[in-house]
Amino acid sequence: MKIGILGTGNVAKVVGAKLRSLGHEVTLGSRDPENSPAKEWAARHGAEISTLAQAAAAAELVVNTAPGLASLDVLTTAGTDNLDGKVVVDVSNGIESRNGVVAVATPDGGSVAEQLQKAFPRARIVKTLNTMAAQVMVDPGRIPGHHTVFLNGDDAAAKAEVAELLKSFGWTEAQIVDLGDVVGARATEAALLLFIRLFNAFQTPEFNLSVAKA
Amino acid sequence: MKIGILGTGNVAKVVGAKLRSLGHEVTLGSRDPENSPAKEWAARHGAEISTLAQAAAAAELVVNTAPGLASLDVLTTAGTDNLDGKVVVDVSNGIESRNGVVAVATPDGGSVAEQLQKAFPRARIVKTLNTMAAQVMVDPGRIPGHHTVFLNGDDAAAKAEVAELLKSFGWTEAQIVDLGDVVGARATEAALLLFIRLFNAFQTPEFNLSVAKA
Repeated sequence: MKIGILGTGNVAKVVGAKLRSLGHEVTLGSRDPENSPAKEWAARHGAEISTLAQAAAAAELVVNTAPGLASLDVLTTAGTDNLDGKVVVDVSNGIESRNGVVAVATPDGGSVAEQLQKAFPRARIVKTLNTMAAQVMVDPGRIPGHHTVFLNGDDAAAKAEVAELLKSFGWTEAQIVDLGDVVGARATEAALLLFIRLFNAFQTPEFNLSVAKA
Repeated sequence: MKIGILGTGNVAKVVGAKLRSLGHEVTLGSRDPENSPAKEWAARHGAEISTLAQAAAAAELVVNTAPGLASLDVLTTAGTDNLDGKVVVDVSNGIESRNGVVAVATPDGGSVAEQLQKAFPRARIVKTLNTMAAQVMVDPGRIPGHHTVFLNGDDAAAKAEVAELLKSFGWTEAQIVDLGDVVGARATEAALLLFIRLFNAFQTPEFNLSVAKA
């Protein structure tokens, strides 16, 4: 599948490498592809690097790895028409500093995913993978025992497509928990605070949230 | 131990019944003990019911089960002097409606627990148990497999004391995760959104969050 990844940071690279290893065509979208530090990475991994608009235009599926508060601007630059009808996997988290403490940014009083779905009503936003470290996203087997990846979005078919992608990463059906519509992204974006605290407590990102059920 | 529970709702009753079954002396604190619907419950469970101030004054350990946004007022009515030097187990969650959607209330830009610790600096606030349903708080064995109870607070000795209380409820050392100082209550209070979404997805409160670790 042709996949456009918006962003060139660590998550983009880790997810991009996994997608390449699964045989997908990967294009990283950058504001400045010629001068991006990810240019060498792309060459090394058989991926392309292009503008945000080019990456979105060529893609069958888009992955947003931009920071939460930059995501609206990044997707706007990628272009409404280039996102039309496409599944947009949103792994972003909106964070800001509030009196020196990391806080969850809630654009328009909601979540990044809702903000994007509202701004691009014909894009099919699926929020997922945003509750864990990048290496766990694409290699769930590195964490032993039961643990969970959450899905939110308004489009059931889009969520089903993303669930298949997650399974190709190694996630099992039982690990994938559908939390309902895009408003539910508030829950998983807010869980970033828990992630940060757990990271501080364990001094490693090698963990994941899980849900135990009777 | 003499335990004062502030509040007379479902959490107060479920936690109170467990504490009674463990042999503790339990007093529910109510704004109007004579007319409280919990009066009969108290009689039936060998517990007392009294004013908030009386319940706090007599207690060696206090449990706050008031709603998050009411907690400051409830503890103020209970009385600063009556909380002095005492461990206050805060199981509250602050919720409010934002455009018809349940949102986490963040008093003073932080959390309920921080608000209480700031207002009552000589009380020893320990945030815990607020990420699950009442029946799971006092009976973790009803949820199979590994799952987690979080602790936050500024006072390490108070947290150790609360950890012992949790163990008497059936929690194991491995299930108790210390998330650090009281500011960390932002993380667990924000997890209420995840709880609500999971409750909606599963249509039962018989679940709990867990942390899987490599």
